[in-house]
Amino acid sequence: MSYEPMSYEPMSYEPMSYEPVAYDPQNVFAKMLRGEIPCIKVYEDDAVLAFMDIMPRADGHVLAIPKQAARNLLDVDPAILASMAPALTKLARAIVKATGADGMTMQQLSEPAGGQVVFHLHIHLLPRWDGVKLRPHTGEMAKKEDLEKIAEKIRAALA
Amino acid sequence: MSYEPMSYEPMSYEPMSYEPVAYDPQNVFAKMLRGEIPCIKVYEDDAVLAFMDIMPRADGHVLAIPKQAARNLLDVDPAILASMAPALTKLARAIVKATGADGMTMQQLSEPAGGQVVFHLHIHLLPRWDGVKLRPHTGEMAKKEDLEKIAEKIRAALA
Repeated sequence: MSYEPMSYEPMSYEPMSYEPVAYDPQNVFAKMLRGEIPCIKVYEDDAVLAFMDIMPRADGHVLAIPKQAARNLLDVDPAILASMAPALTKLARAIVKATGADGMTMQQLSEPAGGQVVFHLHIHLLPRWDGVKLRPHTGEMAKKEDLEKIAEKIRAALA
Repeated sequence: MSYEPMSYEPMSYEPMSYEPVAYDPQNVFAKMLRGEIPCIKVYEDDAVLAFMDIMPRADGHVLAIPKQAARNLLDVDPAILASMAPALTKLARAIVKATGADGMTMQQLSEPAGGQVVFHLHIHLLPRWDGVKLRPHTGEMAKKEDLEKIAEKIRAALA
């Protein structure tokens, strides 16, 4: 997966044979889906589970994941991605309402080069405020009680 | 839309009444869809038009937009968002193949606080390479011939 420059040109654009990496059912989000490890759930439907990011880059940072197996955008069945749309729109509006945000940044990261750390497809929903930057990825975990407080507001906004 | 702190607490989480902003059919992407202004197209289907970002944050930066009107994630009909899934998965794989990228970052920005500049829903597809950061938003336009060269590789990878 490493990027080897193929010439002394700044960028060569030579097609490489990208091969999707196999899905690993032992990733932490798959374990959450199986109930083997806990999460602070805010929403669930037939297709999607949504929960608080434990290392939030903004207050109200939620992750939405498909219940079906997919590593990321490079291997997901388009029908699985499409099935997430109702949850994503509902969640985005509820998070903005619950947190009093001015906007939203949605991100989906594929492979380590794209910023992916857990290898089950997940979509970041990040509420945004005018003039406020996202916090950097520090690796620091938020307090469970603080996440629960925001989760409760989001669940109420979804109801 | 401005964020007014409601208390001296660092974050108040008081629900505010977010009202979606009306769609403006004079935005530049609506003009592209009507053929009133040009774009460097890489893909089109019944639901989606995809073209090169003229201020690319990475070589191969593509924007995918729905053909139907939507301002962003906060007002889009979930069926419109779902209809983009086949195009998004096809495009992501073709862009990675065409550019020899190691991964992909997908972003969708809603409202100025979320980073949105053009107010027709658009999804950024950004090919990524190990150890290479995205370029900052400089406002500098890429050369049309450079964009065309990459677009041609992406079209070939889609074929």
